[in-house]
Amino acid sequence: MTDDLPRSHGRLKVQVTLQPRDLMEEPRRVKGAWEARIVTLFPEAFPGVLGLSLTGKALDQGLWRLETLDLRTFGEGKHRNVDDTPAGGGAGMVLRADVVHRALRQAMSGAPMDRARWPVVYLSPRGRPFDQARARGWAAAEGVTILCGRFEGVDQRVLDHWGIEEVSLGDFVLTGGEIAAQAMIDATVRLLPNVLGNAASTEEESFSDGLLEHPQFTRPAVWEGREIPPVLMSGHHGEIEKWRRAERERLTQERRPDLWEKRKG
Amino acid sequence: MTDDLPRSHGRLKVQVTLQPRDLMEEPRRVKGAWEARIVTLFPEAFPGVLGLSLTGKALDQGLWRLETLDLRTFGEGKHRNVDDTPAGGGAGMVLRADVVHRALRQAMSGAPMDRARWPVVYLSPRGRPFDQARARGWAAAEGVTILCGRFEGVDQRVLDHWGIEEVSLGDFVLTGGEIAAQAMIDATVRLLPNVLGNAASTEEESFSDGLLEHPQFTRPAVWEGREIPPVLMSGHHGEIEKWRRAERERLTQERRPDLWEKRKG
Repeated sequence: MTDDLPRSHGRLKVQVTLQPRDLMEEPRRVKGAWEARIVTLFPEAFPGVLGLSLTGKALDQGLWRLETLDLRTFGEGKHRNVDDTPAGGGAGMVLRADVVHRALRQAMSGAPMDRARWPVVYLSPRGRPFDQARARGWAAAEGVTILCGRFEGVDQRVLDHWGIEEVSLGDFVLTGGEIAAQAMIDATVRLLPNVLGNAASTEEESFSDGLLEHPQFTRPAVWEGREIPPVLMSGHHGEIEKWRRAERERLTQERRPDLWEKRKG
Repeated sequence: MTDDLPRSHGRLKVQVTLQPRDLMEEPRRVKGAWEARIVTLFPEAFPGVLGLSLTGKALDQGLWRLETLDLRTFGEGKHRNVDDTPAGGGAGMVLRADVVHRALRQAMSGAPMDRARWPVVYLSPRGRPFDQARARGWAAAEGVTILCGRFEGVDQRVLDHWGIEEVSLGDFVLTGGEIAAQAMIDATVRLLPNVLGNAASTEEESFSDGLLEHPQFTRPAVWEGREIPPVLMSGHHGEIEKWRRAERERLTQERRPDLWEKRKG
């Protein structure tokens, strides 16, 4: 198969067999803005919510880039089949290793193979949970390639072949990886330089020091008979900080004993 | 303020002061399809990915309903302000209690006040983590009202007043609650009757018995020199089940010692 040529044959030659339009385009370079490359059966799902608000503004400003690769175009035969029944039986369909492989070769063209510089992940509830530390790691990288699952999963051999890490959004099952990809990209993009107007925001928020955020209040001073806690109206910054710290500790102990234990340990 | 009339004044009267269009519409009823009502500053983010694939098909078929309420239309004054600076100082802006209250009154019209029948949640990293058990609980309810956060948060008093539970998508920070809402709705909708073609799928998947899913394989039998594990090609269903079970246990121990411990405990 043409896509199984050794990589030393050169990137351009391989691309020719995959995506003729690449002949007319500049070779992709990785330097510059942080980039997310998404392999998906639903490219129309992107940018989705990422095109709005802060992430959308940052996208328009070129502070990050988004590229989707339609897995269907890498499918087999006239019908561009991407999946087949699970070996050993069972419900659902499994994405084929050869099809995913072709998509990933395209998605990785020009990207560094060092996974610290460019993580390559498959989104699946079997993976390790995504968290703020990983968002920071991704934001420090040059970009990320994300394979969105659908159906029952993807052939394990292509994950092994590429050394792809499985990452989970949480302990629940989604119809596909597209929403999970958007959540992870959103969490990452807001940490990129110049995306948030006020850099202080990312330092005071939840998880920045292992504690949940304190409660917030704003005008009116009295609402439905409920007052803003007087200490917040006192103007004593030391007292305000003390109260907020105590609230953060109280909430973390109450709601997330797991985080509280981890903090102490 | 007109929206502070006691609820005993009747739903219709209250609605008139909020949304004149309701005069021309049938009173909303809660019976029938499962319903998600979203209070958001970005109604254009919906249905987003939820409009595609299985969830989109189910939406078209009327198996569930989606209603967005634009928080901006409940804002204060000519500029429809929805937020103000945090009491006690600090970065960012806080959603106002009175504004959110008006939106929630509209969002809850006709919905049961029993939170088991109709959960009301605010999406925030301070909340308890969303998981598959909660998705099942929501799917068993008649609907859910979701308040999407933005900025630094929402005035704590309106959360207390409504007895709103805070729910988190995971231990990371997003620019807003919209993507989190879509993830939670996706996880819920796929559990509703008749949404998934093959009901068996939800029984065999990750978390259904506290274990991660086993690896999957499909044709071709040999790919890049890698074979499908011979047991899966053997046709011995008992052996296949044993292998899959062992793989599920191995993966859970390796990747999620926390789940493994919980299972044993």
